[in-house]
Amino acid sequence: MSAIQNNVEAASAEYSASFDKGHLALPPAKKYLVVTCMDARIDPARAFGIELGDAHVIRNAGGSAADALRSIVISQQLLATKEIVLVKHTGCGMLTFEHKDAVAVVKNNLGEKAVTELSEKVPNFLAFPDLDKAVVEDVDYLKKSNLVPEDVAISGWVYDVESGKTRRVV
Amino acid sequence: MSAIQNNVEAASAEYSASFDKGHLALPPAKKYLVVTCMDARIDPARAFGIELGDAHVIRNAGGSAADALRSIVISQQLLATKEIVLVKHTGCGMLTFEHKDAVAVVKNNLGEKAVTELSEKVPNFLAFPDLDKAVVEDVDYLKKSNLVPEDVAISGWVYDVESGKTRRVV
Repeated sequence: MSAIQNNVEAASAEYSASFDKGHLALPPAKKYLVVTCMDARIDPARAFGIELGDAHVIRNAGGSAADALRSIVISQQLLATKEIVLVKHTGCGMLTFEHKDAVAVVKNNLGEKAVTELSEKVPNFLAFPDLDKAVVEDVDYLKKSNLVPEDVAISGWVYDVESGKTRRVV
Repeated sequence: MSAIQNNVEAASAEYSASFDKGHLALPPAKKYLVVTCMDARIDPARAFGIELGDAHVIRNAGGSAADALRSIVISQQLLATKEIVLVKHTGCGMLTFEHKDAVAVVKNNLGEKAVTELSEKVPNFLAFPDLDKAVVEDVDYLKKSNLVPEDVAISGWVYDVESGKTRRVV
């Protein structure tokens, strides 16, 4: 057992000892979903006010709408969510490189076989150079998709990792 | 502004008022990442003991390793994480349907254009019929991938949405 694995077991023992939410239903009670970044500095539940059971929370590198599309369709079509809150954040790693830079790192660290697998499975790292613009573009992507019903409300936000504030962009 | 959007603004005001973690660095302090499901009944920070700034948290429908691969490569190659904790959960929606069922729902609700877009962007909904087996298969997928360095520790777990407990599978 690694220190991190031990930590999961310790957290589980503590959390389950006072856990009283075992009755919650599968579909999100407030019928919405959040898409945000995997960044370690974001706690979506507290920062965005999500009570346990309220909303699906989809997280990936950059809070990419395209990368989240499979999950969004499942959330909406099978579990009846009706609204999307998309939140990117200041200081995001995705602002710091371009796709080709990351491919070069993979090639250097993991070799040619990894680059071949990458081209099949991760054709685009989905980095972005402008934060607010990326929020607008991702909201547009979802609004234009035939896979997102027209009556779904979609808002785009930026979370500030230095202040803990979330600002509406679109 | 919808009620959900108002809730984000209210949560932001409350959270930022006492926020004192603005100094955290971009790379996760404990150098690990968690892959888990988007399910509304999971609070990874509390259930798995993740302090703000410690770990990347990737969430998608089912806690799929394949779906998370782009984020995992970025986390490891650009932000130096060294361990993966993968957690699926009891009562997961992904246990309740097959790919073709979800495609039929999309066709019925959203029409032929949506099905065409689906075939391009979401070729597989990645549902699974057996929970523990899916955990084992996802850990194997990552262990066999050329995109995940051999020295990365990978563990697989199941979170019980009724008890709040997290159990190690592999």
